[in-house]
Amino acid sequence: MNKPWKVVIIGGGFGGLSAARALKSAPVDITLIDRRNYHLFQPLLYQIATGSLSAGDIAAPLRGVLSRHKNTRVLLGDVQDIDPVGKRVVLADGASFDYDSLIVAAGSRSFYYGNENWREWAPSLKNIDEAIGVRHKILYAFEVAERLSDPIQRREWLTFVIVGGGATGVEMAGAIAEIARQTLKNDFRSIHPEEAQIILMDGGERLLSGFPEDLSKTAASALAKLGVQVKLGLRVSDIDKEGLTIQTQNTTYRMPAKTVIWAGGVTASPLGKTLATRTNAETDKGGRIKVTPQLTIPGYSDIYVVGDLALSIDPKGTHLPGLAQVAMQGGAHAAKAIIRKVQGKQEPTPFKYFDKGTLAVIGRWSAIADVFGVHMSGYPAWLVWVFIHLMYIVQFQSRILVFIQWAIQDLTSSRSARLITGSAASDFNFNSEVSALASKPPGKERVALKA
Amino acid sequence: MNKPWKVVIIGGGFGGLSAARALKSAPVDITLIDRRNYHLFQPLLYQIATGSLSAGDIAAPLRGVLSRHKNTRVLLGDVQDIDPVGKRVVLADGASFDYDSLIVAAGSRSFYYGNENWREWAPSLKNIDEAIGVRHKILYAFEVAERLSDPIQRREWLTFVIVGGGATGVEMAGAIAEIARQTLKNDFRSIHPEEAQIILMDGGERLLSGFPEDLSKTAASALAKLGVQVKLGLRVSDIDKEGLTIQTQNTTYRMPAKTVIWAGGVTASPLGKTLATRTNAETDKGGRIKVTPQLTIPGYSDIYVVGDLALSIDPKGTHLPGLAQVAMQGGAHAAKAIIRKVQGKQEPTPFKYFDKGTLAVIGRWSAIADVFGVHMSGYPAWLVWVFIHLMYIVQFQSRILVFIQWAIQDLTSSRSARLITGSAASDFNFNSEVSALASKPPGKERVALKA
Repeated sequence: MNKPWKVVIIGGGFGGLSAARALKSAPVDITLIDRRNYHLFQPLLYQIATGSLSAGDIAAPLRGVLSRHKNTRVLLGDVQDIDPVGKRVVLADGASFDYDSLIVAAGSRSFYYGNENWREWAPSLKNIDEAIGVRHKILYAFEVAERLSDPIQRREWLTFVIVGGGATGVEMAGAIAEIARQTLKNDFRSIHPEEAQIILMDGGERLLSGFPEDLSKTAASALAKLGVQVKLGLRVSDIDKEGLTIQTQNTTYRMPAKTVIWAGGVTASPLGKTLATRTNAETDKGGRIKVTPQLTIPGYSDIYVVGDLALSIDPKGTHLPGLAQVAMQGGAHAAKAIIRKVQGKQEPTPFKYFDKGTLAVIGRWSAIADVFGVHMSGYPAWLVWVFIHLMYIVQFQSRILVFIQWAIQDLTSSRSARLITGSAASDFNFNSEVSALASKPPGKERVALKA
Repeated sequence: MNKPWKVVIIGGGFGGLSAARALKSAPVDITLIDRRNYHLFQPLLYQIATGSLSAGDIAAPLRGVLSRHKNTRVLLGDVQDIDPVGKRVVLADGASFDYDSLIVAAGSRSFYYGNENWREWAPSLKNIDEAIGVRHKILYAFEVAERLSDPIQRREWLTFVIVGGGATGVEMAGAIAEIARQTLKNDFRSIHPEEAQIILMDGGERLLSGFPEDLSKTAASALAKLGVQVKLGLRVSDIDKEGLTIQTQNTTYRMPAKTVIWAGGVTASPLGKTLATRTNAETDKGGRIKVTPQLTIPGYSDIYVVGDLALSIDPKGTHLPGLAQVAMQGGAHAAKAIIRKVQGKQEPTPFKYFDKGTLAVIGRWSAIADVFGVHMSGYPAWLVWVFIHLMYIVQFQSRILVFIQWAIQDLTSSRSARLITGSAASDFNFNSEVSALASKPPGKERVALKA
């Protein structure tokens, strides 16, 4: 009897999971390794950050998703090294796993263009913990503002700046505008949440550069209607506790804001660098590994790289974007190639990306969509968005729960998950903020408050 | 015009929230202060800990719940002191608030009988963060066991000890048994989760001492059927990383267990001590403040203490238990008394607790209930439990979401919220655990694993 063909998959995101699924009935032994015990539906992370959904709604335990895959073993572990000659994957704790075929789908993380210190003041949105951190920061800003009487300080706490005008930035800006104008409308007694300033900035000439130009314009005007200030052609040169330093072509100025959210860019997982060193593979400046048309590393036909970590080029010569559908199709392609190899068949055909379209939601009942070349906006686009997102959520249960929560939220503007949990209070230094203020000359209302 | 009557409510739990609700239409100015921005439905916390529900399902933002209460202001703050003569509440950040009537509903926290160092190894279940910590610990134990080959070590990681045989302990034991026997049945490849040992221990002679004796017996045999080992008359003398030290009447022994959960006891919020000192009030050894039949502090008819912080004695001379319904009725009573005072009416009648009954769930389709003196168990009791819990969940949306999740879980045994988030991995020292083990003589399977 032959030894079974060993497949190791690194990463349980869209790429890794879709590979595991495509291999479900294949005569292979699969080990899927992830640092987290869940698959995350990343496109809806901004809804965690804005209190629409709970973590459990968009994350599914990997073991549960794959429990009927009898050929698949899920392991919680942190891959630290890959030996492409010995064909071995090594975990941080020293354990190692042999492979016959390896699928690397380690994904990307947020990137601050070398300014890691900005992360503290401008959290990003790449995983559940970051999203919950952003949620705390937003809700907390309103709480602090409610306690303040000085109009200038209040304004700083009620200024929300989103850096980066891609889909995540647009979705965050729209959602924060709704929170301020709708959700929290009746929740405070001293402040008027609808006075909040929401600023969406980008260094480019237009929002949503991955979308057709007319849809960028539609999105910008829809955001303007929601009260979002869109500022283009600005470059951030610093971010600190008090706000941002902004550079335009001619001048540098400060933008005071207590809440800055980073939707600015991503870079490949650090594992990419290790893998590139071991295989002498080329990487781009985002750390992505240049792969062959078969999605393998040149010279290593047994190592597939898919998803955000791969720099794959379609026949027209354009780089494929870091989208869920690219990762899913890539994962499935790698799986098919492995099945052919195990069956002793020929090299597979090159990977062909089938672009189903791109979508971004702007606010309640409003989205833009470019589906098979058809440009849509407003309510119809929003319906398409809702339908597609519900369809792609992995678990049946989550699909129902998300649907109901969206329905209730659309009818009532309520966001039931706007909870500040964990050590948020101490993280954001409410006490030291407020007592620092208390030592300043009090405004009229503070006197009354402390009488 | 008269100045409005100022009511300060400390705590947004069952007691504080029910007081605020009963005062909704009263001609008073209410400030409700809580350290958290949400009301928590504590009786279902164990379902957060066992991955059945997400935090958002059982917690409701206080501002949202009270947004239509035009006379009520919600503040996020940590009350540090109370001046009963100056009639003032002081926050940790120095802000202070005057009151004409004060309702103190600061609740309780878990108590380790003076052994605070046990908390690290035996987390308890009093708030969302603790419940999520317990969830991580349970799920993590299975993950580590999956990586181990030594049967003795595996057994230690698959031993779950719950200390305390009250309702929370019983509910946790039942839920962990179900996770091991049902939910995770097909999720692992090396271990058999159903081999997990679940031990529920208590120092007393029976479980659920607050329930009638026949129901305690029913519960114990229902737990036994689920595979829970119930051990009574045991005293814990130490808890550390490796397990517990147990004392019986005659002997002392070690019980190795990597997962210990504390359901052992509660003590009043530390604010109780401050308040007792300021008012010379009597407290019991649990830190609860002895109140008058009107629920006020003797000598301070403007300070009401309700819920877990109050030691109130019913006409029969028995102490009222620390239950949601006692807190809710107490809060409503205090509110009514304040309304009478504002209206210039007579002192209110003494608080009379109306006991609607007690319930505890044991497992799927199984509970015990003592409702108006009628003892129920099994499926009928479970239906009563489901109905009452759904009824008392504060938000309409949560009610629907919880209902659907329970329905799906009852049909499929799946628990979709079994996520390990946050810094759990480093908290529980997976890496150092495993590398410590790696240096020991490897078992047969580990060799294969590392080959």
